Amino acid sequence: MAKNRLFYLPLGGAGEIGMNMYVYGYGQKGRERLLVVDAGIAFPDMETTPGIDHVMPDIAWLQERAERIEGIFLSHAHEDHVGAIARIQTCLGVPVYARAFTAHLAWQKFEEMQLESDCLHVVDASPARVNAGPFSVGFLPVPHSIPEASSLVIDCPAGRIVHTGDFKLNSSLSEEAMFSHAGWKDIRDSEILALICDSTNVFVKSEGRAESSLTAALTQLIADSDGMVAATTFASNITRVRQLAQAGARAGRSVVLLGRAMLRMTSAAVDCGIVDDFPPFLAPESALGMKRHKLLLLTTGSQGELRSASAQLSHGNFRGFRLIAGDTFLLSSKTIPGNELSVARVVNRFASAGIRVIDDDEGAFHVSGHANRPDLTHLQKLLSPRLVVPMHGEYRHLVGHAELARENGFRATVVGNGKMADLQSGEIVGEDGVAGRTYLDGTSVISAQSGVVRDRLRMARDGMVSVSINFATRRREIEIAAKCKGIYTGLNGQLDEFVIDAIDDCVGRLNDSEMADEERLEREVSIAVRREISARCGKRPMVSVLLTGMS
Amino acid sequence: MAKNRLFYLPLGGAGEIGMNMYVYGYGQKGRERLLVVDAGIAFPDMETTPGIDHVMPDIAWLQERAERIEGIFLSHAHEDHVGAIARIQTCLGVPVYARAFTAHLAWQKFEEMQLESDCLHVVDASPARVNAGPFSVGFLPVPHSIPEASSLVIDCPAGRIVHTGDFKLNSSLSEEAMFSHAGWKDIRDSEILALICDSTNVFVKSEGRAESSLTAALTQLIADSDGMVAATTFASNITRVRQLAQAGARAGRSVVLLGRAMLRMTSAAVDCGIVDDFPPFLAPESALGMKRHKLLLLTTGSQGELRSASAQLSHGNFRGFRLIAGDTFLLSSKTIPGNELSVARVVNRFASAGIRVIDDDEGAFHVSGHANRPDLTHLQKLLSPRLVVPMHGEYRHLVGHAELARENGFRATVVGNGKMADLQSGEIVGEDGVAGRTYLDGTSVISAQSGVVRDRLRMARDGMVSVSINFATRRREIEIAAKCKGIYTGLNGQLDEFVIDAIDDCVGRLNDSEMADEERLEREVSIAVRREISARCGKRPMVSVLLTGMS
Repeated sequence: MAKNRLFYLPLGGAGEIGMNMYVYGYGQKGRERLLVVDAGIAFPDMETTPGIDHVMPDIAWLQERAERIEGIFLSHAHEDHVGAIARIQTCLGVPVYARAFTAHLAWQKFEEMQLESDCLHVVDASPARVNAGPFSVGFLPVPHSIPEASSLVIDCPAGRIVHTGDFKLNSSLSEEAMFSHAGWKDIRDSEILALICDSTNVFVKSEGRAESSLTAALTQLIADSDGMVAATTFASNITRVRQLAQAGARAGRSVVLLGRAMLRMTSAAVDCGIVDDFPPFLAPESALGMKRHKLLLLTTGSQGELRSASAQLSHGNFRGFRLIAGDTFLLSSKTIPGNELSVARVVNRFASAGIRVIDDDEGAFHVSGHANRPDLTHLQKLLSPRLVVPMHGEYRHLVGHAELARENGFRATVVGNGKMADLQSGEIVGEDGVAGRTYLDGTSVISAQSGVVRDRLRMARDGMVSVSINFATRRREIEIAAKCKGIYTGLNGQLDEFVIDAIDDCVGRLNDSEMADEERLEREVSIAVRREISARCGKRPMVSVLLTGMS
Repeated sequence: MAKNRLFYLPLGGAGEIGMNMYVYGYGQKGRERLLVVDAGIAFPDMETTPGIDHVMPDIAWLQERAERIEGIFLSHAHEDHVGAIARIQTCLGVPVYARAFTAHLAWQKFEEMQLESDCLHVVDASPARVNAGPFSVGFLPVPHSIPEASSLVIDCPAGRIVHTGDFKLNSSLSEEAMFSHAGWKDIRDSEILALICDSTNVFVKSEGRAESSLTAALTQLIADSDGMVAATTFASNITRVRQLAQAGARAGRSVVLLGRAMLRMTSAAVDCGIVDDFPPFLAPESALGMKRHKLLLLTTGSQGELRSASAQLSHGNFRGFRLIAGDTFLLSSKTIPGNELSVARVVNRFASAGIRVIDDDEGAFHVSGHANRPDLTHLQKLLSPRLVVPMHGEYRHLVGHAELARENGFRATVVGNGKMADLQSGEIVGEDGVAGRTYLDGTSVISAQSGVVRDRLRMARDGMVSVSINFATRRREIEIAAKCKGIYTGLNGQLDEFVIDAIDDCVGRLNDSEMADEERLEREVSIAVRREISARCGKRPMVSVLLTGMS
């Protein structure tokens, strides 16, 4: 009988920040039972994915093996871990396990899409366990920047895996309190086959800091501010939202939540019984008349998002609120790489209106939710795993994390998206090209290979020419029309006329059989149009040729 | 007789990093003689300016006053200070003054565009001066990240202005050596009406460091590397290129320059007699056979530019060179905000191939070319100007710099692009909406208001539909064709068919007079197409409607 094996296969998140999705398999080769951790999205950008709503892992590999999947386990409720859960679960038809707050937000996703959510199972934290085929899984609470984040302790006959999920350490607390949950005591005393570990902050050399380290500075800042104060952070960072609200209350300010995510997240937290000590929030409309120095606005848009409360405030107005010279805008957040320009635009709009902008600067007003380099070392030494597999990070993070583990005396394997590692041998055992990306575009899910995005980038850079050739009644009695979009056509649109002349010349040079070949005709016309425009203004546009009257 | 006044009017660079262009005027109001400093470009991005080659200041205000301009003075040769000089000088027809290295690179721009370059005048550093109408201008050498960077000392009957240009202080040197040029001694003893000062690093709290502070770390790093080493920096940072080359030579490595800018800049430096101690460079083809640990490649592409030597190396090959596992790639540079993702893509490609990537990290391998916060304070106290005007920076930098000056006991005025400040009163005296942006797009210069970019962004986000309606011989005997680009049309392109049906319905609903109104017809068809596509896949594309056979 063939030997059972235990493998790890990341489908997203290993070689990028975002789009987390990891598969574990246990059993005979090719017949392993599968366990999936997380089903996240990545965020698009104009340079590579214009117009895309979000990026999701390609689950073709899982779909072909759906009957072998025991379930999807969600580590926490950030979008890059749960954003694609409703679509992916619906494709796979498998149960989903999560703690209450995570399940609540996942459930909202099913609701929004009017999908069945019976698959969702709420699980208690350790010592509760979920038995799923050969696996037994416990949710072990860890500090992070969202409520109920958990590491997953995955046991199977081959041994124990600790999949950290996103987590941080609070070095300011005693070691005992670092992982406050009692379950960690059992774990550290047990044998760990593999530590699959968050890598995003591996290059940050300082020790992690607890959320509570911000309290004094936030309280002081808000107390010392003269006018209105608006503060932004990730709405899902409930602990931060509460800290800010409490600092506002201590300064005698009424607190107003602005932006849909703020309301959604805080009410999820209240619904799940996570917080019972929020200061009261004032409804926006009832706060409009209050004195400026009696108000603290907590706003969405810490990443400069275009329609967020912060961005709209920076343009001068959000639901009647307006910051003016002397007011304060606080970024209690970190700018995610790629969002620098969007955040700078918001900041500069405030600055040009005389509003004081306070950013994270040297960490006084924000702490990260991820474990830093010394924290990773600390965890490795605490757990003494037989193998460290860096997870969740760009390639450089994975490589740096593996080097760190080796420096600390541990075996480590870098496993990128789509590569399969045997967790017993630590070797890569398959490289199947199984990982990929799909895009949510409006309401369609499209393959990254479909060419749609390539065409958009082409049009964004070089514009687009629509050409109509009407062959009317008799051959060569043709009528040509053309329109450029995204190309400067001159003060009187002369370029359109030049294009029409170029098409006329082109068609005139073709013989009967060339004209009869529609594909050939379209290609020749496209080339002629591009050549004309390239010569006149140096652009090489996309061209659509429409033929009518072909008889 | 009306009193003479002295004004300052930034047309670019004051409220942004890049596109520097500043105007000074002296004389009776409305009849001032004008002096222009710099004529730079800004770099486009996909989010706001897709397809644009570069962004230039709108010079309409200057063109209307061209006969009053005494000249354009170039502070140094970075693209954000000289990139637009050839086009702008040609529009204005005024003399251009610069030191040799700057003039050399400016001259290349005229050459490339086959424009007359007689206007270019090479000026020696102080104590030499240029008399230009009521102005007398000296070029005072300052440390920066390119050869021959200069502050401009501008004298006129109203007083003395020090326009710093981009500069840094080297705190590791003695104060006397800080500004090594003797001319600074005279300046600091004279009365300064206004200090117009670089603001980009106002939030950096550490003191500036000299280029020489990198020598030990660079030498060590290259000496300790096993395989091939590739290092990237801005090619125009000749001092850095030389440092890297010398560190390579000390480690017994032959040095190869890769990328056109590397060759252009180093030969400009040699031509201008700026450096005579470059180690010899090996031609790429003659270095191909050499042992890996005997080579140092100096590559363009520190910002992750798509076609740069670094980017091509990260894809596996540049002119026969290939980095492999065990080799080292060094970023001796800072990532400019907005380029994070491009740089990360290059770094991660190297990391995934097992190549060691060293980045600036904590400043061991790169120093900034700009004055930091304590350096700005130092300069203010050294010069004791009657007014500080922050220049070159985003709005938040200008505001922060003005606050710093006030903290130090100086009067300061924030003057954004297009605002005019009286340098004697320190007051804003005009806000004329005179600043703007133009785009170089292929070979055309287009207004930022032309709508071209707006259309591109629309197509990039939502795609484009070309529609042809052929009215043939009799009314209602119409033939419709449609093609989507940048929209997913389904596996068999069904969406095109749905669009044609929707157009057919739309046209069928119109009466004779509506059909005869081409504009109306196009609008109705566009709406119908957008509605259909929006309902089917949630996108709202741009639509071009072409009508033929209208008789």
